[in-house]
Amino acid sequence: MRARLYEIAIGQIAARGYDGATLRDVAAAAGVSPALLYRYFPNKQAVVLALYDKLSHQFVARSAGLPNGRWRDRALHSLALSLDVLRPHRAALRALAPVLVGDPDDGLFADRTAFSRMRVQGVFERAACEATDAPAGDTAGALGRLLYLLHLGVILWWLLDRSADQRATRGLLALLGRLMPSAMLALKLPSIKRAVLDLDRLMTDGLVGSS
Amino acid sequence: MRARLYEIAIGQIAARGYDGATLRDVAAAAGVSPALLYRYFPNKQAVVLALYDKLSHQFVARSAGLPNGRWRDRALHSLALSLDVLRPHRAALRALAPVLVGDPDDGLFADRTAFSRMRVQGVFERAACEATDAPAGDTAGALGRLLYLLHLGVILWWLLDRSADQRATRGLLALLGRLMPSAMLALKLPSIKRAVLDLDRLMTDGLVGSS
Repeated sequence: MRARLYEIAIGQIAARGYDGATLRDVAAAAGVSPALLYRYFPNKQAVVLALYDKLSHQFVARSAGLPNGRWRDRALHSLALSLDVLRPHRAALRALAPVLVGDPDDGLFADRTAFSRMRVQGVFERAACEATDAPAGDTAGALGRLLYLLHLGVILWWLLDRSADQRATRGLLALLGRLMPSAMLALKLPSIKRAVLDLDRLMTDGLVGSS
Repeated sequence: MRARLYEIAIGQIAARGYDGATLRDVAAAAGVSPALLYRYFPNKQAVVLALYDKLSHQFVARSAGLPNGRWRDRALHSLALSLDVLRPHRAALRALAPVLVGDPDDGLFADRTAFSRMRVQGVFERAACEATDAPAGDTAGALGRLLYLLHLGVILWWLLDRSADQRATRGLLALLGRLMPSAMLALKLPSIKRAVLDLDRLMTDGLVGSS
């Protein structure tokens, strides 16, 4: 029952937008009483949290097969995998983009959604830290978190992408693949390594908001 | 009268969010009839377009004093100037972040808001094309448009920045300043120059949506 109500709720959000969808309409579409629906989903936020939970869980499960190798290949692999997981839900995620980006309570960097963010970020941290060429010391973890931030930027691009079949996103992924060797070389420079560590600290301070 | 109604409308959006603010409340707060308000602003979108118009106009006017010199200094100068122009309006822009990012009609890459985007983008294009070290050929314009995209990323970071007084954004600007010399060197490499041209084409295809 919960799974069915969830699917209907997400479908309505995808079709009408987050603000346009109402739980009352979801109950009507499911042929259940609002009271029953509220027992599973007390509000729309609960539906969004269920979506975060489901997608981040799928991503972690599928990333278990991440091949050994260099961090650049593991990062690109994780990025492509994340887009694979999200692709069937593009309409719902587009409808939710305002919430994801703008909402202090249910957005991407909100405390309430941290459980899901930490899961996804963890995959990118492991992609760097457990690579055969993992940078020494703190740099590996910082690199993993920046790769996660880059991944968010690519997803935002993908959600905004107006080209047919999001071909501009495929082009962006191919371009990132071409740039990775240069990024690997750059990371050997002390000034770039320091920049990675600094950017990681700024991200923690500014976006995640631990002060 | 128009300016006064605009200020009240923006104040209500900043305080209550875009969805929470209503033109009816704006009219009440201004002590005018809704009919009079509608003559100036037929809907909330008109208020948002007026904000885009005002801020992009201010930015262009102030960028007239952009010093001659290298593109990296001109780009950083433009970026800092843009944040200066936006700073007094942070609360309203935060309330509008969902519209800016997610709205196909009134968002940042929408056709209806192109007039404002082109103005701001033009400043970054000139920062690159009219620099004393402007790259040859098409690269200068492409570089300018990518600097504009980078600038949008920094503004999104600034809007999400939870640190006191947005110190993490100041840190990010300082870090970008430190990385610019490496970016200038990298742009001498044919592979990086090609990546700049490709990314510019992907941005036109995917985000601006000319196909």
